[in-house]
Amino acid sequence: MEHLEVSHLFAMLVVMLGAAKIGGALAQRIGQPAVLGELVGGVIVGQSGLHLINTSYETIHLLSELGVFILLLAIGLETDLRMLARVGATSAVVAVVGVVLPFGLGYAACRLLGLTDLVAIMAGATLTATSVGITARVLADLGRLRDVEGQIILGAALLDDILGLVILTVVTGLARGDSVTVLNVATTAGIAFGFLGAVILLGTLLMPWITRATAAVDLPGTSTILALIMAFGLAWLADRAGSAMILGAFAAGLLLASSPRLHDIEKGITSLGHFFVPLFFVGVGASVDLHALDPATPEGRLALLMGCVLCVTGVIGKLFAGYAPFWFKGNKTVIGVGMIPRGEVGLIFAQMGLSTSVFNEGLFTGATLMVLVTTFIAPPLLKCLLSARPPRRITEPLEGIEDLVTEA
Amino acid sequence: MEHLEVSHLFAMLVVMLGAAKIGGALAQRIGQPAVLGELVGGVIVGQSGLHLINTSYETIHLLSELGVFILLLAIGLETDLRMLARVGATSAVVAVVGVVLPFGLGYAACRLLGLTDLVAIMAGATLTATSVGITARVLADLGRLRDVEGQIILGAALLDDILGLVILTVVTGLARGDSVTVLNVATTAGIAFGFLGAVILLGTLLMPWITRATAAVDLPGTSTILALIMAFGLAWLADRAGSAMILGAFAAGLLLASSPRLHDIEKGITSLGHFFVPLFFVGVGASVDLHALDPATPEGRLALLMGCVLCVTGVIGKLFAGYAPFWFKGNKTVIGVGMIPRGEVGLIFAQMGLSTSVFNEGLFTGATLMVLVTTFIAPPLLKCLLSARPPRRITEPLEGIEDLVTEA
Repeated sequence: MEHLEVSHLFAMLVVMLGAAKIGGALAQRIGQPAVLGELVGGVIVGQSGLHLINTSYETIHLLSELGVFILLLAIGLETDLRMLARVGATSAVVAVVGVVLPFGLGYAACRLLGLTDLVAIMAGATLTATSVGITARVLADLGRLRDVEGQIILGAALLDDILGLVILTVVTGLARGDSVTVLNVATTAGIAFGFLGAVILLGTLLMPWITRATAAVDLPGTSTILALIMAFGLAWLADRAGSAMILGAFAAGLLLASSPRLHDIEKGITSLGHFFVPLFFVGVGASVDLHALDPATPEGRLALLMGCVLCVTGVIGKLFAGYAPFWFKGNKTVIGVGMIPRGEVGLIFAQMGLSTSVFNEGLFTGATLMVLVTTFIAPPLLKCLLSARPPRRITEPLEGIEDLVTEA
Repeated sequence: MEHLEVSHLFAMLVVMLGAAKIGGALAQRIGQPAVLGELVGGVIVGQSGLHLINTSYETIHLLSELGVFILLLAIGLETDLRMLARVGATSAVVAVVGVVLPFGLGYAACRLLGLTDLVAIMAGATLTATSVGITARVLADLGRLRDVEGQIILGAALLDDILGLVILTVVTGLARGDSVTVLNVATTAGIAFGFLGAVILLGTLLMPWITRATAAVDLPGTSTILALIMAFGLAWLADRAGSAMILGAFAAGLLLASSPRLHDIEKGITSLGHFFVPLFFVGVGASVDLHALDPATPEGRLALLMGCVLCVTGVIGKLFAGYAPFWFKGNKTVIGVGMIPRGEVGLIFAQMGLSTSVFNEGLFTGATLMVLVTTFIAPPLLKCLLSARPPRRITEPLEGIEDLVTEA
């Protein structure tokens, strides 16, 4: 681990933020989500391209961890538990099938390729979570956010974020060296759900007290900093309890969503996110080593093959999840296609695979390839499917979603 | 340099942000500026107290460097060059005398104590810059911000920030190993002023073009990130040119103050500042080692003596600066007292003295003591002086100052 000078850090921040903004703007120009542009920007300035960014510096790694942390806190802030309760059964079925099926297919396919149990589990896990941000953005652009299908997709995407985080926690435990037994998996999942439940329960009871105790402090930015203190604290606690730290950040967001100062907190966290979140995506892109997909080497062929297999199983798994609520009369294909794009959480899995050495460079790059491909194909497919038929609105508009999209 | 785990970083961030908020709130409660509370909070959780924060971790050091960077960018954004031109000669005289006199007195006294040339220069330099934020806050609380005296103080405090930064650049060059000759000092000062001038000249010419080129990018938070890219870039450039990096951040702030998106940029930078700036002040407090002032050891006695000498010369120097514009008919004592509090820039000097090994722990702690004392004594003195007489307003209110105070 090399020593990092302040001036070198500043130079890398110029490159990372610059790559994120240029990449994001170009992606938007061709009708793609900004996050894809940030990822590709990272690939270009990173070790596959110009070698301007070195993600092995501890501070760069920790800044990008702060990026995931802020991102999960923001997703938690925007997750409306009551909304999830309302879209109800249909979304829940889509979410559960959309997590289990891609995971199972991905796992089985990787085992067939001869990969180890742990690698296959990590690879399957990268397939589980739909990117709620990307899907919501595309639906909003098409004016279909309030269609029945749109609402089901959003509910399911939010739910599978939660399921995905629990899986991430289990996989983190396994990557730490726990052996893969049913008991271990059940215990870790129990801790994760238990942690989430306990935090929400205790937090809901304590929040009014915390709000009163801190109302007297009148310094600017206080509500955001208190939110951060709570989120850092819960992340640390989650780590102590043997769960994933981002589960703590997400739980803090869920709790703070009921704060009377939610508006201030959201504004502050969004501003911090504008700085930190691109550092994560550019960092992931910079870690991608396209040379690891060189078909001339056996490792390259395996990584390339895994990337393709993950793309196929990822698309098929989510597509079938759309058909899982067999009683639903609407367009099931739209639901399936809407669930395809993986984004933030998929990249978090891939990054975690790399940092825990479960994935080598090649497998990490293969998994990142899957995120890129699933995200690229969904928007044009959705446009084709949706422009062909008139919107079917449900009566009651759901609060929060519009904000979520404008912030995404 | 030890390896820093993510969970340990998060735990330290909880402590640092918590110490900053609790300290800041308590300081406010007893009528003192929040920054003093953050500093004392840092002393309590740092190596003088609970040992919860270890500032020798590279990432903690770099995060606190990002704090100074954001702080100087914000000061630059709030510095109105036209306002400085209007208050004119009186402020300029107060500023120049208020930089030269404390520097000279501090330098001479430290040389008399037997300290080396370089240490004496660094110690004198910590005395140069009045804290514009603290003074403006106290004047606003007393409703005297628009008195003639208040305006002169503010103008002089802004000007001596600029002079202080140039001195900091010179001292940085000396600390790097340049020998202390008139030619060297003149060259470094020339580079600093040249850099500032060139950036403002070129920047003013290029800003309309940059504004046009980036107007097309419509992603949220873009204006703030572009401002950061520019500031990081100029800081890096200042470093390459042989100047202090924070001079680049300050120059970027001056340029961006004329941006049509100034309001968005200020909001974004302020949000980032709420997170990063307390990390700097708590970090400085945590580096303070009160044991280094132990009067039982010769080093401790010297450090304590230097702290007292800096307090006395710092107060006398600025007090006399208030009498420098001999033609001014108003209350010269108010001006002198208003210039006494040192804050951000004084701490930056002390921190730089420590990190370049010019100061040992004891001398660093002595210099920090001076910042604490000068900041503590000014508000009550000002209150005594100002409540005794009626306000004398000038006709034209100055824009920007009110915002500066509410943001400070």
